[in-house]
Amino acid sequence: MKLYEKLADDVEAQIRSGVYRHGDRLQSVREASRLRQISITTVLRAYLLLESRGLVQSRPQSGFYVNWREGGELPVDLLSAPQPLAPVAVSATVDVSRLVLSTLRSIAMNDALPLGSPYPDQAAFPAEKLNRYAFEASQKTPSGLIEALPPGHPKLISAIARRYLDQGLVVDPGEIIVTLGATEAINLCLQAVARPGDVVAVESPTYYAMLHAIERMGMQAIEVPTDPVTGIDIAALETIAQTQPLAACMVMPNFQNPLGFQMPDERKRELVALASRIGLPLIENGVYNELHYGDAHPTCLKSFDTEGLVLHCGSFSKTLSSSCRIGWALPGRYRDQVEKLKFLNTLATPTQQQVAIARFLARDGYEHHLRRLRKTYAQQASLMRNTVLRFFPEGTRVSSPAGGYVLWVELPEQVHGLKLYKEALEHGITVGPGTMFSVTDRYRHYIRLNYSSPWTPQIEQAVIKIGKIAANCSR
Amino acid sequence: MKLYEKLADDVEAQIRSGVYRHGDRLQSVREASRLRQISITTVLRAYLLLESRGLVQSRPQSGFYVNWREGGELPVDLLSAPQPLAPVAVSATVDVSRLVLSTLRSIAMNDALPLGSPYPDQAAFPAEKLNRYAFEASQKTPSGLIEALPPGHPKLISAIARRYLDQGLVVDPGEIIVTLGATEAINLCLQAVARPGDVVAVESPTYYAMLHAIERMGMQAIEVPTDPVTGIDIAALETIAQTQPLAACMVMPNFQNPLGFQMPDERKRELVALASRIGLPLIENGVYNELHYGDAHPTCLKSFDTEGLVLHCGSFSKTLSSSCRIGWALPGRYRDQVEKLKFLNTLATPTQQQVAIARFLARDGYEHHLRRLRKTYAQQASLMRNTVLRFFPEGTRVSSPAGGYVLWVELPEQVHGLKLYKEALEHGITVGPGTMFSVTDRYRHYIRLNYSSPWTPQIEQAVIKIGKIAANCSR
Repeated sequence: MKLYEKLADDVEAQIRSGVYRHGDRLQSVREASRLRQISITTVLRAYLLLESRGLVQSRPQSGFYVNWREGGELPVDLLSAPQPLAPVAVSATVDVSRLVLSTLRSIAMNDALPLGSPYPDQAAFPAEKLNRYAFEASQKTPSGLIEALPPGHPKLISAIARRYLDQGLVVDPGEIIVTLGATEAINLCLQAVARPGDVVAVESPTYYAMLHAIERMGMQAIEVPTDPVTGIDIAALETIAQTQPLAACMVMPNFQNPLGFQMPDERKRELVALASRIGLPLIENGVYNELHYGDAHPTCLKSFDTEGLVLHCGSFSKTLSSSCRIGWALPGRYRDQVEKLKFLNTLATPTQQQVAIARFLARDGYEHHLRRLRKTYAQQASLMRNTVLRFFPEGTRVSSPAGGYVLWVELPEQVHGLKLYKEALEHGITVGPGTMFSVTDRYRHYIRLNYSSPWTPQIEQAVIKIGKIAANCSR
Repeated sequence: MKLYEKLADDVEAQIRSGVYRHGDRLQSVREASRLRQISITTVLRAYLLLESRGLVQSRPQSGFYVNWREGGELPVDLLSAPQPLAPVAVSATVDVSRLVLSTLRSIAMNDALPLGSPYPDQAAFPAEKLNRYAFEASQKTPSGLIEALPPGHPKLISAIARRYLDQGLVVDPGEIIVTLGATEAINLCLQAVARPGDVVAVESPTYYAMLHAIERMGMQAIEVPTDPVTGIDIAALETIAQTQPLAACMVMPNFQNPLGFQMPDERKRELVALASRIGLPLIENGVYNELHYGDAHPTCLKSFDTEGLVLHCGSFSKTLSSSCRIGWALPGRYRDQVEKLKFLNTLATPTQQQVAIARFLARDGYEHHLRRLRKTYAQQASLMRNTVLRFFPEGTRVSSPAGGYVLWVELPEQVHGLKLYKEALEHGITVGPGTMFSVTDRYRHYIRLNYSSPWTPQIEQAVIKIGKIAANCSR
């Protein structure tokens, strides 16, 4: 056990035993550091851990306050009921994209608080530097199109391979295909392994971009029960595969959008073993991999794969720039098909953006930038989570993300997420309606909240407002 | 008849009557201007017209020389034999993309003279300005992704609509969808009207991006005989449509790649009328529309369409920047499907590039830039054309492009275009093998040459070299 974990446990024990009571201020970080002769960082990490456990809450410029009542303990590990196996759904025609597009538009048009946005807050990103690098790159190679042809710019490709190496995964640079964001990577990987009309397994709830990829190619989605802590139900997936041919399975093993879980390594290994056994291509969406709250970088399915059946997709949209639109695929044995499809689909990925990101990775302390981002998101997760737990109507449950920047909120059954979405919009606030995350109606009383923006009183009030609207709806 | 046309006719008559003989130098432009009391521009235009007729040739720093022999007249209007109707081909699986991609790569990797390139020479493009505008745009809107969502940035959309208006075509800005180059526009338009397995009619030869779009979606191509001067054979298209269901027809009515023709208005009207009669969606690739050599802007199929059956695609890649990757679709009655497919396919088109081009169109004399480009290309067309006619083996025929920047060259039958391509590459020169322009082998003795680069001795020698290689192959 690490020092900060020990300190957190000590303080938790004091809270639970009543030494500290609801509303009490904890020792200041500086004070605790001096008294206990440990570093300020260690104390801060301990306090943040307590916050993520839902026991304390930080108030800007003021300190950490106990936010726990004996007997009034709130569900720390959320959504604990696994989804029932029964309502596994096959959709004849997936069509969730209209709802998603109109949600995104209303965020833009109404200048609303973007709690419904799927994108990270760009203010924390090194836009200035990337723009400058892109400009310099465009000055140097005025033509640039030929260098941008698939598989992509050699400098970016080796930077991506090096980044995997830093995380202990040896990747053949020759396998990497640069794409227009992970959106294109996922689309092309799916197109490489499945044909129109084929059935594709997805998590339930699933990130809607997966459903979009299925919709784009006129395929069918089948939803597999997914545990909010351990991920997709592997036994259920196997049962489904026995009853009908599956062309692929699309998963997000780390910090799944919307659930936020990190699939345990053992389960990842099991999933890849099943895939090998039945010859099932796994499309792994890894766009949040860099945004872990734990110390260790999470493993990916790719690292357990010996057959080339995992098609891994990544992106810089969640860590460096959403507008650069740079992602990539590691398509395993389907590499050549994906490269060809990339060429057919959009010909080339703009050179300047590829070079700009490669340059940033080479010289600007990507790891340092990520550390700051992870810490910020972890803090904001716990702040928003606690606010939801305090101010949303009884019966509300909320996820405990292990990474990323979204919360998944289950509201009382009578609350209709789309109605809530519309009412919130009238107050200048957006939320992500749960309906976007399934081809069925089963998540109609769920919403997704984005906590990537700095925790301001305005954001706090917006969350409280959503709670009030939900309370009204649930009456 | 205009003054310069009259002068050209006079001089042509003198050449044909033997007043001037092969190798003779014409009066200098200055001298002719003084003697005939007409402007230097008029004389120059007359001489260039003669050059495009294959009668004279300009030599840098020297003047215009007669390049015509009695009885040895070369085919001025080329390729006059229309393609036979018989070998109309249905391809079970279109797969020309590998050849195209490897050709493009070899251009890049060998640093070869890009006569095989499909891209215009970027040196004539305002890259400096566009890069600066893109940089400024990125500084102003650091996030930018939401504004980039389909249908596209409002400023660019109204700039495109205004541009059509300048050309006399009233376009509803609400119909425009901004895409990643015309490549994506063509892909999405095809996907909106046809399904995997469907049969799609194309010109023969056809621009390979059309075949790529068909290949991408697992559709089938059927090639329709296409006249090198008047375009697709409308009667043949109708006959084909009577024998099997066609999901769409993909055409390039202006300055077709590779043939270079401009379809006469009457034929355009006829084609649209046929499409309306049989309910056939027409996908119109208009990427070269701005590069006309004649004075008038060419009409497009869209302007004859009253049913919304024409899906028109455009791009700035051939006139402003290949690397910006900005194109658009005007999909008629299929607008909503195309918008949705754009969202599914790549989510968003980078904002900075959209804003940069909108700004250039608003303030930087696009029309002036285009006039310069058209004049340059028209001159270079005639220079390269004449060089081919002089130095290529007997039996060679060459197109007379009415716009754009490519020549289509028919070599003696025994010359294998791919072999020629490989040999030329060893000499640091690329050509576009004819095989890329069909799903059959019927253009194996054809090549496409790009004349967008300035006419230097190096380029001239490269063309002569290709002729020598072809002569060797034809023995």
